[in-house]
This record gives sequence, structure tokens and C-alpha cells, in this order.
Amino acid sequence: MAVPPSTYPRRLLPLFLGLFQAALLLFFALFVTYDEPSAQAEDTSLVANQVYSTFPFFQDIQVMLVVGLGLLLTFLPRYGFSSLTHNFLLLNFSMQWALVLQGLLHHFHHGQIHLDLHKLLISEFAAVTVLISVGAILGRASPCQLLVMATCEIPIYLASEWVIVTCLGVLDVGGTITIHIFSCYFGLGVSKALFRATQQPLHPKETPTPSSDLMSLVGTLILWVFWPSFVAVLCQPGDAQHRAILNTLLAMSASAVTTVVASSLLQRDGKLSPGHLQNGSLAGGVAIGVVADMAVPPVAALALGSLSAVLCVLGFGFLTPLLGRKLKLHDQCGIHNLHGLPGILGAAASVVAVLVASKDTSGSQPSQLSPVGGNVSEVVEGQWGGRGAGGQALCQAAGLAVAVGASLLAGLLTGAALRLPCLARPPERLCFDDSLYFKIQDQAE
Amino acid sequence: MAVPPSTYPRRLLPLFLGLFQAALLLFFALFVTYDEPSAQAEDTSLVANQVYSTFPFFQDIQVMLVVGLGLLLTFLPRYGFSSLTHNFLLLNFSMQWALVLQGLLHHFHHGQIHLDLHKLLISEFAAVTVLISVGAILGRASPCQLLVMATCEIPIYLASEWVIVTCLGVLDVGGTITIHIFSCYFGLGVSKALFRATQQPLHPKETPTPSSDLMSLVGTLILWVFWPSFVAVLCQPGDAQHRAILNTLLAMSASAVTTVVASSLLQRDGKLSPGHLQNGSLAGGVAIGVVADMAVPPVAALALGSLSAVLCVLGFGFLTPLLGRKLKLHDQCGIHNLHGLPGILGAAASVVAVLVASKDTSGSQPSQLSPVGGNVSEVVEGQWGGRGAGGQALCQAAGLAVAVGASLLAGLLTGAALRLPCLARPPERLCFDDSLYFKIQDQAE
Amino acid sequence: MAVPPSTYPRRLLPLFLGLFQAALLLFFALFVTYDEPSAQAEDTSLVANQVYSTFPFFQDIQVMLVVGLGLLLTFLPRYGFSSLTHNFLLLNFSMQWALVLQGLLHHFHHGQIHLDLHKLLISEFAAVTVLISVGAILGRASPCQLLVMATCEIPIYLASEWVIVTCLGVLDVGGTITIHIFSCYFGLGVSKALFRATQQPLHPKETPTPSSDLMSLVGTLILWVFWPSFVAVLCQPGDAQHRAILNTLLAMSASAVTTVVASSLLQRDGKLSPGHLQNGSLAGGVAIGVVADMAVPPVAALALGSLSAVLCVLGFGFLTPLLGRKLKLHDQCGIHNLHGLPGILGAAASVVAVLVASKDTSGSQPSQLSPVGGNVSEVVEGQWGGRGAGGQALCQAAGLAVAVGASLLAGLLTGAALRLPCLARPPERLCFDDSLYFKIQDQAE
Repeated sequence: MAVPPSTYPRRLLPLFLGLFQAALLLFFALFVTYDEPSAQAEDTSLVANQVYSTFPFFQDIQVMLVVGLGLLLTFLPRYGFSSLTHNFLLLNFSMQWALVLQGLLHHFHHGQIHLDLHKLLISEFAAVTVLISVGAILGRASPCQLLVMATCEIPIYLASEWVIVTCLGVLDVGGTITIHIFSCYFGLGVSKALFRATQQPLHPKETPTPSSDLMSLVGTLILWVFWPSFVAVLCQPGDAQHRAILNTLLAMSASAVTTVVASSLLQRDGKLSPGHLQNGSLAGGVAIGVVADMAVPPVAALALGSLSAVLCVLGFGFLTPLLGRKLKLHDQCGIHNLHGLPGILGAAASVVAVLVASKDTSGSQPSQLSPVGGNVSEVVEGQWGGRGAGGQALCQAAGLAVAVGASLLAGLLTGAALRLPCLARPPERLCFDDSLYFKIQDQAE
Repeated sequence: MAVPPSTYPRRLLPLFLGLFQAALLLFFALFVTYDEPSAQAEDTSLVANQVYSTFPFFQDIQVMLVVGLGLLLTFLPRYGFSSLTHNFLLLNFSMQWALVLQGLLHHFHHGQIHLDLHKLLISEFAAVTVLISVGAILGRASPCQLLVMATCEIPIYLASEWVIVTCLGVLDVGGTITIHIFSCYFGLGVSKALFRATQQPLHPKETPTPSSDLMSLVGTLILWVFWPSFVAVLCQPGDAQHRAILNTLLAMSASAVTTVVASSLLQRDGKLSPGHLQNGSLAGGVAIGVVADMAVPPVAALALGSLSAVLCVLGFGFLTPLLGRKLKLHDQCGIHNLHGLPGILGAAASVVAVLVASKDTSGSQPSQLSPVGGNVSEVVEGQWGGRGAGGQALCQAAGLAVAVGASLLAGLLTGAALRLPCLARPPERLCFDDSLYFKIQDQAE
Repeated sequence: MAVPPSTYPRRLLPLFLGLFQAALLLFFALFVTYDEPSAQAEDTSLVANQVYSTFPFFQDIQVMLVVGLGLLLTFLPRYGFSSLTHNFLLLNFSMQWALVLQGLLHHFHHGQIHLDLHKLLISEFAAVTVLISVGAILGRASPCQLLVMATCEIPIYLASEWVIVTCLGVLDVGGTITIHIFSCYFGLGVSKALFRATQQPLHPKETPTPSSDLMSLVGTLILWVFWPSFVAVLCQPGDAQHRAILNTLLAMSASAVTTVVASSLLQRDGKLSPGHLQNGSLAGGVAIGVVADMAVPPVAALALGSLSAVLCVLGFGFLTPLLGRKLKLHDQCGIHNLHGLPGILGAAASVVAVLVASKDTSGSQPSQLSPVGGNVSEVVEGQWGGRGAGGQALCQAAGLAVAVGASLLAGLLTGAALRLPCLARPPERLCFDDSLYFKIQDQAE
């Protein structure tokens, strides 16, 4: 499957991307337009306020994805330039692809798609799934394989998100189920199908250096700081958004402290592992997403943050090695520990939160839980669309099941497709090395 | 006092932090809640506007503390991972601890503490004092020592802030007196009591490398960019906040240029010192905080910025070596030059500003100086709560005296406590090295 | 012209900067003040809203210039500290100098200049021209030369901007013509006159290392993320600003993807060049500035982004070497490829946009193109101030011609002035080395 570097098919990447850009231009020329400028002064003020209330969040999320996540992936010491660039390329490609698909699927009114900041944001969220999934196979896959993976993952994500949020009415404002769990199991499926039963040996270029670990930690800190914006951007303005911000801040803070505790206890010599810190500090943000705007008490946010950090560290310590040995499952960045386990914890917490909230309020304030904002097309009215707390709890669980099932299956199929010889998986000895893809000075010098 | 590495007590850190997190959960479970969701549409819009007006500032400050300050401390070439992580851990720990204490002290209405973004911000400000003080002993103290120091510093800060702002009515919107001066002398007191009369020899791992100096400068630049948000976040919206932003921008800009002048003149060969640039560029931000929202003319902001940069560079050139020789005072990051001297300059400027402003306005516009915003519980009405310009000037001076005196005394006591053998001060030869605390590849490779 | 290091005149820099700061203080003391605090509650709310709507954009731009652009310039492996510091110093110096000149030129009402955030922003924009122009001679010019260059460039920029925007009525909300094209050809003029006919040989310290390339790419990504704020900050709030943000996002995204295509196709072995990625990804932002708030369809933004990335990569591949050989023109950072070529493309696109828009609307909605916001003092009413589409198109072309002509001429004269021996151009063998200007550990260690 891997090809020798002399015959490495270097024209495939520009061909694929070039054709895609041409198709994108055609699609935009035919179907996409902006809203008519508003004639009334009131409308202008409304648009201005929407920009001021959304754009800062949007910029925060861009920093997270482009700079924060990119740097987090630079822990591979000779692969930093590739990690940053592939992350950046995949974000743009996936966002554009999601714009096209969303245009075709949902917004085909009057033959024209009216582009606005909110639609770009939704597409950006779709692209996040790709960036997460890539973590499972980082360093051993070619850019072409990554682009094909993105091409497959985006439509499947959109379909899965439609089933989970629109059909099942799952409440998930921070994308815990729809984004984190989905992309984690999709990535693991791809990894399993791509590498099959061969356990990946430790590559000599895989071990982080102090300086690559430092850069990666800076990436973590950037993600940590802006995570509340990611969770709260689609909340309803006002109390729900305020609560989502506070819950996320509390969960992230508890995660940061608990990671140190867990990592220190796990190691015999009590030294902290850089990998634990880089991932565990963010686990709380993954878990809190699904309940962030619900009427959960602050202590629940702290507890979720602490628990998810413990799960994440234990995952690195025990589960990842176990899955590697037993299932021959390769997970380069440990996405199962950062996105999978905390995601499942969060989904379980949302079931509990729905049940508890209904007891607390006993019908008198049914709207406390419901305002979920932009993620759901139609805002659920009353007692979760009239289905009652038990029904809603069941829906949350069903959403989790759909996300795991659909993503695993689709990931396995996608991974099988990535084995096509033409996609040029790099030979093992050239893996984890920027010099395969970039005109870059040899690092040995 | 220092222990050999084989018997280094590694279980203390997770034990301490773990117990604290458990206590925090208990405290939150019993006492902390969110505000009831607002029933009225008007209230919702009010909450939304509060979020939009506070949250961007809050995020800027988070970036400063987590990324900017963390990177600034990475100038120690083999201690970068520790600097970043300890800074991050202390921020979270101190913020949580301040939340608990503030809850207990001030906000115990009806048995419940209502958490909101403003309270988190106030706690974050308290945590800043710890992050600054740590600079005096960076690299030679264990994480346990740092946590104990934070445990002592936060309540003393809250008490001192209460005396200075609430009792004395000191105007200090940017925390020059309450945060910078307090934390500087607290840190110096800790350093003095911890290291006693032994002058610390230059450690071989203490000298910055070009790449560690570069990372540190990036930290400075991040702090420099976002400093106006730190100063202006608690100002009253409108003119006062606008003026605070402008004053801070002018002071920072003058500092940056003047630092180059001063550093170049100080060195015989005219070469600039990285340490001067990393610190002097920020000195203006420290000094301007206390007068930022007062009706000072723009030239005063420029002059303060220039003067404080000169003081900071001279401090590095003459005062720090002098204090080291005469008082055996060790100040690893030069916090006295960045926070102490410019802070005192700013406090003196506030005395002058109060006196001058009263002459200018001669009672006709007494409210020009008074709008200080959130830091003061009751907004001072009229001529500084009726005490007249002379009285207010006296208060500013008294606030400075309280901050210096209380922090020095408390710091000395805290430093003595840090000498407890169980807190595991690292042995000298293992100082300034990440590998004592982290499973990190040897940097020699 | 170059001086030996022993006689390198090190007192010139602090002397020049010190005198400038003193003059600045004097100027501010005499002429600059803040607005009177607003007496009415309504006015306070107005000021508060202006702060909330401008300040986040302003901070984004500060991050771009101080951190993003600074890091982008650190691709020279032994010159990173100088690149960051000189960029930072020039930004502050130029901004202050522009404040003074703008005060003298435009705002001399009642003997007092009323400072506000908008004036600082305009001065910051003026400073950007210096930061861009420096790229042509980076590493081979002394700080004194750079400061003299800034001293000359700022007044010429202000005059050129006045001619282009106020006299000609050119629409250029993102500064494509007034900032990017002007500063590019100014920088090239300086480079030509400074280095004359001597083709600069490849310096051994000029080649990027993997880690310096990585830092530089991080700078690119920071610029890429915040570019929409730069383009949209001066737009009229509401639809025009919303459209400017969207257009910029689309153009940047297309640039990022197309750069990979073009760079990969250009190289025989298909490997990507770091320099192409670092610059090409931003080309779309340069080109889109001039049409960002016009009623162009989304496809035009995508096409502009793609085309400008192609131009940028081709420029690096063919034009820069050609200009070096034929014209002995030295362009260290390739500013002609990032700012010149995409800028000209954008200016050409603005001519087309004006002509097409007038056909589309046929006079019924003449205001669609006109709201350009703050850059123009008097908002153009009706059909571009009554001059018709053809007239406006001619104006756009005339603006381009003025920008290129004035900047080239002024740059050549400035470059000749920089050859004065007293300005201490560093000797060739000490170029590209931090140790000439900073007390920094030798990088060889």
C-alpha cells in the first residue's frame, strides 16, 4: 500500500484540490448570494448588533481551530509544519465543502443560497469534526488520504447531526454528542480500517522533544482559554448563554486542576506527563458542552470537569494501551481519551440533568431547559416539544447511540476507501517527517 | 531544607490538590447557585448586553494570564514547561480559592451565593497577585510551596483590597496599588524569608537561550496588546472606560519606545538587553492603572509610561544587583522592577492627579474623577465621598502604605512557612529543570 | 557605507528616539486633550456602544501587527529577536508620529486635538505601511535606518491617502490601494536606492530552519484569523460591515487552498514551499480589501482569493528572481508578491465591480456601493458623489496610479537618504544576526 518516495504521486493533491476549487467557484457563481441590503435603519441596526454579538465568538473559534488546535498537534517534533499546515488546509477545505453541502441540502430557497455569518459558523463546526478525527491517524496518512477522509466525513456528519438534533430533538448546544463523540469514533473507525490488524510500532520520530511539547502545551492553553466561546456561541443570548459560559469556565478550571492530581497519582515517580496535561485540561470542555446551557447547578459543572479529566488521564494510562494490544487500534493523539470518554460522560450527564430538572421544576418552569438556540432549527417549545422528561432523556441516549454507531460504521468504510493505492499512504520510514511534503531544511542539521 | 531527589515527596501535590478539589465541590454543592433565569424579555436583553460588554474583556484577560504571562516566564530555557504549567495551575487554584473565600466573606445572602461572570472576574484578579508574586522565587520553589503560598496570599489580598478600596476609598481601577504593588512586595517578602541570608549563586541553567528569550518576548507582546482590557474591564462604561483604554494605550506605547532608549543608554556597547525589553515595555501598563480613568490629560499617560520604563530599566541595571548584594534579596524575574517601581510611580501620580483635578474643576465638575466602576462597591458620589481633594490624596497615599506594609509582613511570614521541610524545596542542582516535575525527554539530547 | 562593528555608532538610536519622545510629550502637553465627559446619560451610552463596537476590532488588529506580523518576520533563524523587536518599535514610533502629523494636519480645531479610539486606529493604519515596507530590506538595515525610513514614509502616506481617498474619492475600505500597494512600492523603492546595482548575495544566515519556519507560519495563521477585523473595522456598521467580513473570510479561505495547489504544481517534486504558504495564504486578504464592502457576489470574493494566491506563488517562483537578475531589485520578504501583485489585482477588480454594479442596479439602488465608512471623511452620497460609474471606475484606476507612482518616487528618495553614512548600515557579514543589536547568547552554543 505504501509507495516508494521516488514514485510518490505528487500531482494528485493539486489536481484534487484544484478541481474542488473550480467546482466551488461554479457552485457559488450559480447559487450563492448575499442578503439584500436592508432598506430600513432599524434593520441596519439589527444586522450591526448581530455582527457585534456573533463575530467576537467567531474569531475566538477561528483562533482555537487554526492556531490552538494546530499548535496542539505539533507535539511530533519533526512533523510540526505538516501538522499545522494540514490542519489549516483541512479546516478550509472542509468548511467550503460543508458550505456547498449545506447549501444543497437545507437552504435551497428560490434557487439562491443567502450566505451569512451564521451559515459560515455552522460550516466551521462541521469542519471541526474532520480536524478531530485526523488525530487518530496523524503522521501516518498522506494529505490526499486526509482530504478524501474529509470529503466522506462532512456529508455523514451533516446527516448524523440532522438525525440527532432535528429528528430526535437532542439538546447539545456545545456539540458534545454531534461533534466530539461523532468525530472521535469516526476517526477510530478510519484508523482501524486503514491500519487493519498491524499494530503500529513506535516510530523513532514519534517521541516529543521538550520544545515540541512546549509548543503543544501553548496550543492547549489557547484552546482552553477560548473554549467557552465555542460552547456558548450558538446559545440563546441572555441567561442561557451566560450560564453556558460560566459552566464551561468552571468545568475547564476543574479539569486543569484535576488533571495534575490524576497524572501525578498515575505515575509511580509522581512526575506529570506532558500528554496528560495537554489533553486532560481540555476534557471538561468536551463533557460540559451538552449540558452547558441547561439549568444544572454550578457544582455539576465542576464535577463533570473533574471526572472527565480523571477519565482522560486513565484513558491514556490504561485504555489506549489496552485497545492497542487487544484490538490493534491505533490512536495517535489519543482522541478517544479527549473526545470519546469525556463525551460519553457528558451525554450521560445530560440524561441525568433532564430527569433531575423535570423533578425540580415539576412543570412550572418548563422552559428552563429548552432554550438551546441556533443548533436546533425550530426552538423546542414547552416541555421539550411535549415529550416529557423521560422522553427527552431517552432521546439524549438515543442521540449518543446514533452518534457512536453511525460514526464507527462510516469511519470503517471510509478507512477502507483510504487504502486505495492511488491515495499514496507514505512509507513507514518517511512517516512523521515534514521533509516528505515540504521543501524544508533537514532537521538533522 | 532541600531534599534529595530519591526521597522527594511526590504524593504531597496530588494529595493537597485532590483534597482541595473535593472541598471545592462540597462548598459549591452546598452554597453556590446561578441567578434565576429572568422572566422578562427586557431582563434577558440586559443580561445579553452585560455578557457582550464583559465577556470580550474577560477573554482578553484570560489570554494575558494563561498564554501571555505563561510565555513571559519561559525565559528559563530548561524550565519552560514548568513555568507554563505552574502558572496555569496556580491561576486555576487561586481563582477557585478566591471564589470560595469571596463567597464566604461578602456574598452570603440567603444562604446562597449567586455566581456570575463579574464574580469570576474578581476572583481572577485575585489570582493575578499570586502569579506575579511567584516571579520572585520562580525555578527554586516546588509546586507544593507555590500552592501553599497561593493559599496564604489570596485571603491576605482580599483583606488588603477590602481595606484599601472599601474602607479607605482609594481609586485604583487598574489594580496598580491593590494588585501590582501588593503582589510585588508579598513576593519579595516570601523570597527574603525563604532564602534567608544566603545569596543565590547563578545557576548554570538560569541563562536564557536565544529561543527561550524569543518565546518570552512573544509573551510580553501578548501581554502588551491586551493590557488595555485588563485596566478598563472594571471601568464604568462610557467616557471613563474610553479614557482608560486610551490612557493605557498611550502609556504602553511610550513605555515600548522609552525602554529601547533607556536600555541602549545603560549598556556600554549600546546593545539592548532582552530582559529590559520583556519587562520595560509593560511598565507603563502597571503605572497607568491607578489613574487610567481619571481626568488626566493624555500627556500625563505618555509621561507615566516613559518614566516607568526608565525606572524599570534602571531597576534591572542598578537596584536588583544592589538589593541582592546588600539585602541578600533574590528576585528571579525582577518583579520589583516591573511591578514595584512603576506601581509606586503610579500611586504617586494618582496623588498628584487628585490634587490637580480639584484645582482644575474647582468643584464645578466633581464627578470627573469619581466614576471608578466595579472595583468599589458603592460608587463614590460627589467630591470623593465628601472628603475633598486633600483627603482623597491622603487616602491614595495611605492605600500605598497599607499595600506595601501588609504585603511585606505577610510575605515574610508566608516565606517562613514555606521553609517547612515537608513542602519539599528542590535541591539546588535540580532547580530550573523541567525533568524534576515532568516526564520529559532530556534536553541534552 | 557599511561601518566596522568597533566603530558602530550605538548612541544614535537612543538619541534619535529620546528626542522624539521628548518632542512627543511637548506636543501632547500643548495640543492634545480628551473629549469632555458627556453630561447626558444618552451620550454615555453612545460612547459605551462605540467602545464595544470598535475596541474588539482594534484589539484584533493589534494582535495582527504586534504578534502575527512580528512572528511572520521571524523566518530568519538568527534574526528572530530583531525582527520581533524592530517590528514592535516601528509600530509604536510610527503610530506616535502619525498621531502628531494627523493632529497638525487635520484636527487643529480650537487649538486642541481631541484624541479618541478612532484617531488611534487611523494612526495605527498609517504605521502598517512602515511595517510592510520594512519587509523589503529586513535584516540588512540598521534600526536607525528603519526609523528614518518611518519618519519619511508616514507623512508621504498621509498625503497620498488624502489625495487618493479625499480628493479622488477612491473607495478602499480595506486599504488595498492606500496601504498595501503604497507600502509595497515604497519599500521596493527604498530597497533599490539603498542597495543600488549590487545584487545581494545569499547570506549564510538567511536560510530558514524548520523551527524558524514554524514560528513564521504561526504568525501567518494569526494574521489569517484576524484579517477580517482589519478589513471591516472602518466599514459602516450593518450590512456593509457584515458583507466585508464575509467577503474577507471567503477570499482568505480560497487563498489558503489555492496556495497549496499553486505551490505544489510549481515545484518539480511537488513539495510545498514554506514561503509560499506563509505568504500566499494571506494574498486574498490583500486583494479583497478594496471591494470587500461593495455589492460584489460571493463568487467574486472566492475568485479574487484564488487568483491572488496564484499570483503570489508565481511571483515568488518567477518574478522575484527575475527582478533580482534584471533590475538588481532586492525584496527580502517578497512584499511584492504578498502586497504588490494581489493589491493590483484587487484594484483592477474594484474597477470592474464599480462598472458591473452600476449596470445591475441601473440607478435604482445607487447607495449599494457607496457606504464606505470612516476612511472617507464625507460619506459619498448618491451615485459616487454624482460622478457616475465610469467616473468612479476611472477614479479607482487613478488612485492605483497615484499610489504606485508616489510611493516609488518617495521610496527611491528615502532609500537614497538611508545611504547617509551616519545611519550605520551594518556590515554584510554581521547582517541577519541578533547579536549585533542584542545582548543575546551566541546561537552557536
